[in-house]
Amino acid sequence: MSKSSFGLIGLGVMGKSLALNILRNNFSLSVYNRNTDQEAHLLTDFMKENEHQDLVIGFSELKDFVHSLESPRKILLMVSAGPAVDSVIDGLITYLDKDDIIIDGGNSHYLDTEKRIAKVEEHGIQYLGCGISGGEEGALKGPSIMPGGSKKAYQNVSPVLESIAAKDASEKPCCSFVGPGGAGNFVKTIHNGIEYAEMQLIAECYEVMRHTKSNEEISDIFESWNKSDLSSYLLGITVQILRKKEGDQYLLDLILDRAANKGTGSWSSQISLGNGMATTMMTDAVFARYISAQKDRRVAISRQVKRDVNIQDIEESIIEDTYRFARIVNHQQGFALINELSNKNGWDIDLSEIARVWTNGCIIRSSLMERLIPLFREQQDLFDSKHTLEQLTQAEEAVSLYLKYVIEAKSPSPVVSSAYQYWLGITAGNLPANLLQAQRDFFGAHTYERTDSKRGVFFHTNW
Amino acid sequence: MSKSSFGLIGLGVMGKSLALNILRNNFSLSVYNRNTDQEAHLLTDFMKENEHQDLVIGFSELKDFVHSLESPRKILLMVSAGPAVDSVIDGLITYLDKDDIIIDGGNSHYLDTEKRIAKVEEHGIQYLGCGISGGEEGALKGPSIMPGGSKKAYQNVSPVLESIAAKDASEKPCCSFVGPGGAGNFVKTIHNGIEYAEMQLIAECYEVMRHTKSNEEISDIFESWNKSDLSSYLLGITVQILRKKEGDQYLLDLILDRAANKGTGSWSSQISLGNGMATTMMTDAVFARYISAQKDRRVAISRQVKRDVNIQDIEESIIEDTYRFARIVNHQQGFALINELSNKNGWDIDLSEIARVWTNGCIIRSSLMERLIPLFREQQDLFDSKHTLEQLTQAEEAVSLYLKYVIEAKSPSPVVSSAYQYWLGITAGNLPANLLQAQRDFFGAHTYERTDSKRGVFFHTNW
Repeated sequence: MSKSSFGLIGLGVMGKSLALNILRNNFSLSVYNRNTDQEAHLLTDFMKENEHQDLVIGFSELKDFVHSLESPRKILLMVSAGPAVDSVIDGLITYLDKDDIIIDGGNSHYLDTEKRIAKVEEHGIQYLGCGISGGEEGALKGPSIMPGGSKKAYQNVSPVLESIAAKDASEKPCCSFVGPGGAGNFVKTIHNGIEYAEMQLIAECYEVMRHTKSNEEISDIFESWNKSDLSSYLLGITVQILRKKEGDQYLLDLILDRAANKGTGSWSSQISLGNGMATTMMTDAVFARYISAQKDRRVAISRQVKRDVNIQDIEESIIEDTYRFARIVNHQQGFALINELSNKNGWDIDLSEIARVWTNGCIIRSSLMERLIPLFREQQDLFDSKHTLEQLTQAEEAVSLYLKYVIEAKSPSPVVSSAYQYWLGITAGNLPANLLQAQRDFFGAHTYERTDSKRGVFFHTNW
Repeated sequence: MSKSSFGLIGLGVMGKSLALNILRNNFSLSVYNRNTDQEAHLLTDFMKENEHQDLVIGFSELKDFVHSLESPRKILLMVSAGPAVDSVIDGLITYLDKDDIIIDGGNSHYLDTEKRIAKVEEHGIQYLGCGISGGEEGALKGPSIMPGGSKKAYQNVSPVLESIAAKDASEKPCCSFVGPGGAGNFVKTIHNGIEYAEMQLIAECYEVMRHTKSNEEISDIFESWNKSDLSSYLLGITVQILRKKEGDQYLLDLILDRAANKGTGSWSSQISLGNGMATTMMTDAVFARYISAQKDRRVAISRQVKRDVNIQDIEESIIEDTYRFARIVNHQQGFALINELSNKNGWDIDLSEIARVWTNGCIIRSSLMERLIPLFREQQDLFDSKHTLEQLTQAEEAVSLYLKYVIEAKSPSPVVSSAYQYWLGITAGNLPANLLQAQRDFFGAHTYERTDSKRGVFFHTNW
């Protein structure tokens, strides 16, 4: 029996779609799924239904699965992030040989990936922590792929990963080696952080319009934006969502306003907090979901808070200019966080290449992302561009009008608000942090620097 | 030689002050400091300078130090949080007997405390993770103390801890057993998170006034607030700071606006992010420090951003009402986070008692904190009070005026801003999170709940 060129473990939604994608690209594949009561059907269904019977062989015994693979073995794990990944790795280690390759394709925390690398390296096994974005459809038709870890391993698996990946505007695969260690999973985590803020920004624009406009009208506005420099995958699906009807009713109006999350958004924010980086927008987007989740409490409080709100209409161009402004700030914050950890960890991440990998297949693909490719060839931060600063400065008037409007209308807009506050902060030559330093020195003798002395020289006052 | 009733390790700023406080309260004390080149002087200086020679004995050998203590031994660690704590514990374990007590008085992460408890329990040693707030002066004259871990251990050490603690308005010690596990260190961490936001709020009020008022005028305004329901330790020291002169100049004007931090603020935010709680204010306060730290970058960007700002005066009462509003929201967020983790971990924390312990000795003591003692006897969340909701609703007008002013003046006010945004969110019966759920279902088949169906029933649409 000839051996398979690639192995895949876990036939959940993402695993199954990637398996079909690999088969469609004519790679021979072994698939494994554990044979528990709840999961046994995943393997039997998959083996029955796929159209590539000549290329695929299914296993519910890990040992047989491993032995069905050609050397060096290349095994993609598509299991739930967390302990399940460790458990599968522990099972695999017994059967694997030196130079075999494990690829974790789930949303693992990059620090977990680094622990796993250290562990499997003791057995001479190569490891890739591989971010994969695009949801079910992307996984099937072409996701955006962010592999990190062993570069040698990447060279071995790149034919498969680059074949199944989405293609950019130049037909190059949206798959690129990100860097060593946990760099791949880290970049995928921050992708999701940026995504949280992008989604929330659209939700805030919808919120600001929905009291005076119909879903169809809002959809038309978003559609016109989507034909401009603002176009993005998320805006496109929002146009469709707003128009979707169930009988006479708009489906959107029947959906409960209680947002769930799978944790990568909060990881992004936790990473930025732990590394001195102010990703205010993705963080407020996570908090907005948490607040939304308290539906019953909100309803109870809202019944007690009596207020008269006179909602006027607001010019569409004000919302549009504000949305454009806030998206740029969001991308600045996200890429700055990537750059910071790349520098700290010596990952040497190419921001331009990350932007390129994110132009297709992934959830945050957009024409803005296309424009970031050349920009990050020249600079490491969006705010290093004079043009970007001018653009944002010009938008200040619109953002001010927008914010004054939502403040008056009592319409929550936390992420637009934090975009503007961040902008005011980072453009302020002087902030009132001198007072914070004075307070810290007063109560904790934490010392301060002075404007009339060198940096790094610290003073203490007996206040 | 008679044995000492208490032991203390680490004679840094806080350790030394606590040692003097313990001696002042007539407990016999053994002190230990390691004998490294950099630290040897700490012990010799302390032994030379303290006025309680009859009560204290110093050691630079751990074994001798341990043997100088009466059983069960009670040893307070005042060493830098992190690996140093583990290293001292490892050293101590060799010499300690069953039922001896280790008290970690540093700002340890509560999860580290829980690992240490598991470790020392194997040796039959009792452990307390003990938050201590008050800075150098508090440590010396009476800090606020938040012990958690072994209740049995607390009963043994309470005579010492309650003697050295600050006293509340009824002369009861500001020291109370918080709960098992890491509860004590956790509560201290959130204390610091609340403190970050309280400090930043004062800084934002200062920022909003400093373009049109002198330091003396601002100080006078803060002083008048400090005689009202707004009075607090932090406001009081700010009055002094604003008046402090160095020759002809105000010292505050010479301090560099680059705020440092020691990590507990970011821990608070990371904990809330990991537990579904929206502590927007302490988080934006941490981010404000991070932004302030980028001084050179801010100056460089500010030179490129040309804007005309026409700064008008703003009524003092608007700022005052806004400050009052924001402080209430900050305390709601902080105590809600404590309550959430208490429930999740079965810590059974008494919020009223925490408020009481925080009425003296600690940095966030205030007359608001005094009012929270009776309030938390009746309810578990500040927003469960109809009176509080009415008070905040009445303040909306002032906060709106304040925010519209800072938006126009381009004066950064991120934490006031996030207080208001949080308020708008939690008082909104309907949020645009239905769109987030629709998007998540569209691209990731994450499903959604419906307004016309039961909670917990999930739907998926083929969009």
